[in-house]
Amino acid sequence: MTASRPKRIFLDYASITPVDPNVLEKMNASLMESFANPSALYTEALTARETMNMARRDCARVLGSQDNEIVFTSGGTESNNLALLGVFEHAIQTGIKKPHIITTTIEHPAVLEVCKEIERRGGEVTYISVNEDGVVSPKDIQKAITDSTVLVSVMYANNEIGSIQPIKEIVKGIREWRQQHNTAFPYVHTDACQAILYEPIHVIKLGIDLLTLDGIKMYGPRGMGLLYVRTGVVLYPLIFGGGQQGGIRSGTEHVASMVGLAYALDIAESYREIESERLTKIRDYGINKILETFPQATINSSRENRLPNNINICFPGIDAEFVVISLDVVGISASYSSACRTLKEDSSSYVIEALGKKDCANSSLRFTLGRETVQGDIDTLVEALKEIII
Amino acid sequence: MTASRPKRIFLDYASITPVDPNVLEKMNASLMESFANPSALYTEALTARETMNMARRDCARVLGSQDNEIVFTSGGTESNNLALLGVFEHAIQTGIKKPHIITTTIEHPAVLEVCKEIERRGGEVTYISVNEDGVVSPKDIQKAITDSTVLVSVMYANNEIGSIQPIKEIVKGIREWRQQHNTAFPYVHTDACQAILYEPIHVIKLGIDLLTLDGIKMYGPRGMGLLYVRTGVVLYPLIFGGGQQGGIRSGTEHVASMVGLAYALDIAESYREIESERLTKIRDYGINKILETFPQATINSSRENRLPNNINICFPGIDAEFVVISLDVVGISASYSSACRTLKEDSSSYVIEALGKKDCANSSLRFTLGRETVQGDIDTLVEALKEIII
Repeated sequence: MTASRPKRIFLDYASITPVDPNVLEKMNASLMESFANPSALYTEALTARETMNMARRDCARVLGSQDNEIVFTSGGTESNNLALLGVFEHAIQTGIKKPHIITTTIEHPAVLEVCKEIERRGGEVTYISVNEDGVVSPKDIQKAITDSTVLVSVMYANNEIGSIQPIKEIVKGIREWRQQHNTAFPYVHTDACQAILYEPIHVIKLGIDLLTLDGIKMYGPRGMGLLYVRTGVVLYPLIFGGGQQGGIRSGTEHVASMVGLAYALDIAESYREIESERLTKIRDYGINKILETFPQATINSSRENRLPNNINICFPGIDAEFVVISLDVVGISASYSSACRTLKEDSSSYVIEALGKKDCANSSLRFTLGRETVQGDIDTLVEALKEIII
Repeated sequence: MTASRPKRIFLDYASITPVDPNVLEKMNASLMESFANPSALYTEALTARETMNMARRDCARVLGSQDNEIVFTSGGTESNNLALLGVFEHAIQTGIKKPHIITTTIEHPAVLEVCKEIERRGGEVTYISVNEDGVVSPKDIQKAITDSTVLVSVMYANNEIGSIQPIKEIVKGIREWRQQHNTAFPYVHTDACQAILYEPIHVIKLGIDLLTLDGIKMYGPRGMGLLYVRTGVVLYPLIFGGGQQGGIRSGTEHVASMVGLAYALDIAESYREIESERLTKIRDYGINKILETFPQATINSSRENRLPNNINICFPGIDAEFVVISLDVVGISASYSSACRTLKEDSSSYVIEALGKKDCANSSLRFTLGRETVQGDIDTLVEALKEIII
């Protein structure tokens, strides 16, 4: 007789979400029905084209955009690259000598590394600091705008600490500036990959010009993301070729994954309120229980203005990497910052450092909740932490 | 009682192949087992990482490369962009003022449009003509090399007319030049998307530096391609971010599709000889029968030096687009050039024009065969053509 292995507890939904089985089923069906190259001329291609158009329409409906404002990409990283480099390179084409971009110090590497590349290409980037709650001030952003500013890129919610940015107010300040200076610039881009499951994302209500989403963060397809591009915003392409998607993104379209992304977005919208409420309770239960159990522990970023699924706690003096590995041994999957950071073999978090908590940069743990998370998981987690952190 | 609809005949496998159901099954299993972000630290991530490494190893084994020479991309278009722009931008970084690239007049738009972009960025491109059989001369290429030439990009086999290029001889000429001039340049890139199912592709035996493959052309995953990058070849990245795949291609890896690509490649290798032989017979039967039936028709490119699955015939005076649509009505899917061309609403084929057959550019039809094709399909096709073309 073998002992049954206890179910593992996955608390790293911010790094990736499993694919919703219903989404997968729909993708598989579409892959068989609409397998053709949508650019061809015969019936199978027409089916693929119609399916693709329907997926685009479905995404547009949820986001409040026009169909032709949705560009499908290979994921959030490509969407961010296309948004930033696309605006920058187009600005260069139109004769702006040193295009200027404003962003924050706590963006994802898929924005920060693109900013570094833009600096290498002769652009200028201003990195705005955040306060101790991980929130950027719309006034600081407005003050940083110059005549050369072509883009402001601020993430909707942070992937490590879950802090939510005041996007609407940021947009308001920028629109004021545009109006006063009678210009279309700067555009505003937001990476909403982490926010889409919990925040109502409506591009018109937000007043945003560019918005990034990724299937892997919303129980959707891998290798499939989108970039919302407001009508009137001109992007220089990143990838050249057959001229698909209006020339903005060449390459044969992956119809089934577009269907999957649209369906995942639709499901996210239906679950948003109820799931946000459910996870907020578990999150708050978790934060309270951890802070009660470990009196020296402190929360990173504010208690309220954070994603419903994000718990990020500093345990002074611990080695976060050691704790993550120890938790894994007892069946709990967690993270000490973001998955991308581990790749750079840099266990220190620049996001937590940006909060003014340098000492916490190596000793914070991130637990991100998802559809399978129940309150009991938190109890198991706290018991495990008590064993590991003494 | 409803009449049963006759099965459609798909003769456009060069534009896309359906996914092999066994590949799909394997991808679905992997998606569930290895769903985690491979960059994380816990057991699920380790599983994903191991699965990814295994897929990479499997691809490398078939292609004869080292594991770390395989870069996964979102498809053939991105692979070609990464190869060409990657070499070009790196050359710019190293101080080469006007990097020079040599290619042919019959490349896919995913190479030609990148060449145009390179010209816009200040590079120089030489487009070598092909002979009446759609084949480039290795000597013409060697003669075009200058001290600034950083890359030669020649497709392994053409997507429209199926002509196969003498890649080995081209490489031989370039290696001679490199040796004589004591330089590492130019590198040689080949887009082998159309060839992989029928030609033995072994990177060492070919002596190639960069090689493009795409899942959609080999009964594999959509949104997944690869670029073989020989050790020593430095590419400037196209997409910036978390630093995945050694920094050459950032973005969370799509593990399940990597598994699918590796499996599709493995199946392609097992079927290659037998399927090439089978399709060559059907192809030749088709070419003979069409040319006998339509005495004015001529074959585009040579009879022998062409992919086993490619039939491309000029029917003087016909409107190719009209015939493709008419064939569709009777249940046959064909093409008048390539799917990408239809997108540009340009029904004229620059590839056929490059053969010196300007009159045929608007009146040629492409029929590309695949795993489901049987000889009877050709008989049905010829009967249908007889009704349409009089």
